Amino acid sequence: MAERRFDLKVVPLDIATGRNWIVLVNEADGLHYGIRAGDEISLKWDSHQTEVAVDLTKSFVQEGEIGIFRDILEKYQIKAGEILSLAPAPKPESLAAIGKKLNGGRLSEKEIVSIVKDTINYKLSDLELAYFVASSFPENNFTKEEAYFQTKAFAETGEMFKFGKIVADKHSIGGLPGNKITPIIVSIVASYGIIIPKTSSRAITSEAGTADALSVIAPVSFDREEIENIVKKTNACLIWGGALKIAPADDRFITVLKHLGTEPLSKMVVSIMAKKVAMGVTHLVIDFPMGEGTKIKNKIVAKKTIALFQYIAKKFGIKLRVIIQEAKGPVGRGIGPALGIRDDIAVLNQLSQRPLDLEAKATKLAGVLLELIGYAGKGQGSKLAYKALQNKQALAKFKEIINAQGGTVPDYDEIALAPVAFAYKADHDGEIKQMDNVAIIELARILGAPETLAAGVYLNKSLGDQYKTGETLYTLYTESEVRLEMARDFLANHLLIK
Amino acid sequence: MAERRFDLKVVPLDIATGRNWIVLVNEADGLHYGIRAGDEISLKWDSHQTEVAVDLTKSFVQEGEIGIFRDILEKYQIKAGEILSLAPAPKPESLAAIGKKLNGGRLSEKEIVSIVKDTINYKLSDLELAYFVASSFPENNFTKEEAYFQTKAFAETGEMFKFGKIVADKHSIGGLPGNKITPIIVSIVASYGIIIPKTSSRAITSEAGTADALSVIAPVSFDREEIENIVKKTNACLIWGGALKIAPADDRFITVLKHLGTEPLSKMVVSIMAKKVAMGVTHLVIDFPMGEGTKIKNKIVAKKTIALFQYIAKKFGIKLRVIIQEAKGPVGRGIGPALGIRDDIAVLNQLSQRPLDLEAKATKLAGVLLELIGYAGKGQGSKLAYKALQNKQALAKFKEIINAQGGTVPDYDEIALAPVAFAYKADHDGEIKQMDNVAIIELARILGAPETLAAGVYLNKSLGDQYKTGETLYTLYTESEVRLEMARDFLANHLLIK
Repeated sequence: MAERRFDLKVVPLDIATGRNWIVLVNEADGLHYGIRAGDEISLKWDSHQTEVAVDLTKSFVQEGEIGIFRDILEKYQIKAGEILSLAPAPKPESLAAIGKKLNGGRLSEKEIVSIVKDTINYKLSDLELAYFVASSFPENNFTKEEAYFQTKAFAETGEMFKFGKIVADKHSIGGLPGNKITPIIVSIVASYGIIIPKTSSRAITSEAGTADALSVIAPVSFDREEIENIVKKTNACLIWGGALKIAPADDRFITVLKHLGTEPLSKMVVSIMAKKVAMGVTHLVIDFPMGEGTKIKNKIVAKKTIALFQYIAKKFGIKLRVIIQEAKGPVGRGIGPALGIRDDIAVLNQLSQRPLDLEAKATKLAGVLLELIGYAGKGQGSKLAYKALQNKQALAKFKEIINAQGGTVPDYDEIALAPVAFAYKADHDGEIKQMDNVAIIELARILGAPETLAAGVYLNKSLGDQYKTGETLYTLYTESEVRLEMARDFLANHLLIK
Repeated sequence: MAERRFDLKVVPLDIATGRNWIVLVNEADGLHYGIRAGDEISLKWDSHQTEVAVDLTKSFVQEGEIGIFRDILEKYQIKAGEILSLAPAPKPESLAAIGKKLNGGRLSEKEIVSIVKDTINYKLSDLELAYFVASSFPENNFTKEEAYFQTKAFAETGEMFKFGKIVADKHSIGGLPGNKITPIIVSIVASYGIIIPKTSSRAITSEAGTADALSVIAPVSFDREEIENIVKKTNACLIWGGALKIAPADDRFITVLKHLGTEPLSKMVVSIMAKKVAMGVTHLVIDFPMGEGTKIKNKIVAKKTIALFQYIAKKFGIKLRVIIQEAKGPVGRGIGPALGIRDDIAVLNQLSQRPLDLEAKATKLAGVLLELIGYAGKGQGSKLAYKALQNKQALAKFKEIINAQGGTVPDYDEIALAPVAFAYKADHDGEIKQMDNVAIIELARILGAPETLAAGVYLNKSLGDQYKTGETLYTLYTESEVRLEMARDFLANHLLIK
């Protein structure tokens, strides 16, 4: 079909929506071109094209003008007076594939590629994408092959890297509060000269993603060239994957999933593996906490998920070890971005207050990775990992990486926490037998984490600890009294510890 | 949890979004209250409460002000200077139930009621609702009991009517172009003194819903009292259900489904039956076209859908007959709101140009309904229905109903069609053996139907007709040359008839 386009002059509008792309058109133009409020339309300029939703107005923009909201302006650096053209957006063809999947069909590689492409070029709206995401529930609705196709499409529609013949990586499946083992593992492994270009995500359902925690002490957003330089210099990096456009479709899936607060496991496997494939990873250890409050509730689900990981890894020639650990409480003491990175610095500096559970877990996984690669003999990895902490070669490597990224590793006490603090004290003697991971994360989020980097919860007492009346059990950090009150309301109805 | 609210003064904004509720807040207030662009927040005033998404600005509204977009202003009649309060909206509890369903769980009546309630009070966003809608794919994912609970919740969360001890109704499942049998059936049945308060929908995927067609000649939006008066006076009505708030949750489901362009059949059954329950219907005939281009592709699907209809009807004590008819081409000649109502007027007036297929189908179904109620003996219904057309008692009843609704029944030629017309002529002799329903609907929509009431396609030749070179096969009606060109582009790539 020939394209019917009409040109409009840009009027920047000082409105941030944080959601789908939106433009504003005069009602007279709407009437003339047959556009109604809420219609999805294709917006084209220079070499760009994206789908937008149209709002209508009588006054904010005049005929012949198009109001562009701040989100698009910033993303594409559009200037006032530029000419953009609009055209009716036909329903994307991939919608038919989404309908097919919802109706129980099997998707071909071609259909999956069309969905992923329409995702990254915004031809599918958030709502349409939600239908696709929903189609991967329940767990057995996606075949292994479909998950493989999606992994491949996710990886190949973004940046692809090749850092070396052996490229190590670790990945933790979320659900555990704290658990900032990544900076420690990367520092240990890289300190032995192994390439480990680690990308991390920001928090989806947790109180702080590793990228959130690292952003407290260093920039984490880099482009392709910068990262290649950082890895060349230090044989590692600790960066936010989102800035890099590796598996870019995944970012939109995450946005859409945020609303739901739960994630299909097959989607999680695809998301993780696509990023590993894009980063050229050859040896991968996956840290797989299982139990109450984690993503994996029981052994049946765990087994199924591991099988999918192994299937996809094999397809791409990746050597994979999955380490399942029964999760009980949080790992480490700090629940929140700044609090989490403080734990890492305590471990790397071997300070007395370092959380030993965090150290034990990090060295165990670093050890497994060293063995998987063949750098350490069987059963020797963990010992080697500990050595790197004790002789501070891991700390030196950590400083090297952070410096290469333009940051500085502060001392433990130099990391600022949010100013409004509240110590929650025991009103009886006791012992901590259980901790509610879900409630701890929820509490940290109410306090402002992860957006407020310095907000969160410090666990003065942890699993197995004895406490006496009047001792502080945990300390809340937040930026405003309102947030603190909300947190205290929450605590009035939820038990963090038992 | 105690509520944290803050009051803001209304500034009306001349922007129509046609989508979710949106308000605009100054960035300084956003920072102060911890609101980010895109956050969902609860908006409260007088006795109202609804969820809104927040956009942020530095300039359009000042601190202490809240910009309200046109959609909310109009719906709630909010005035400049009014004080509204905002509060962080906690995730609605029904989201957990949606997640449970997506993960393959079974929902209790209580959980389904919570979802439906959160739908009508806008606690669930369109995107969140899409997840729930998606969970009723594939077809066997919803149990019959869940569908019953949903039907009940849909009906009971809206207006409920009781027009009499016997209340007749018919319902056509969409998918066929034209097919405006409702005004004819209602006029016939009501002309025998039977109560038949018909509510219709606007087009979802078709070129014109019955409500769209009727709106060409009469108002179709009434409140409860008005409808009760119309039915009292004429023992019937022909109205748009949407204005009435019967099963109001369904409207939001329709909005969300529009994006997808396909509908789970269980959702369709729920939607239909909820409205019948709300209208107090006791005897119901369902017109169920089956075949290419309809919603029901084959007998297996048909059987399953009928079983669900019967299950739910029985639960509510409704006597139900389902009439399955193999669908071939469109029913009638007029594809579009004005063109469709013109067909009805031709049949009711018994004009020579009336489409006989439309007449035959309408009298057949009216006959079944008369028999189901017990007004006509077995096998006598259809004859009685024909009689009402021939002696013009149905026409008189139709005029009575339309007059009671404040409209006038025009003559056939008085119904205006859109000014830009194009006759599509045969370039060879032949016979119409097949018609593509999907392409015909698509064409009518490209021409502007259903929004442009006078737009659409008139089928000068229909299934089985012979044609000669130069004869007009069909005529396009639209409001602008641009639309006509788009339609001609479409025709260059699609065969309507074979």
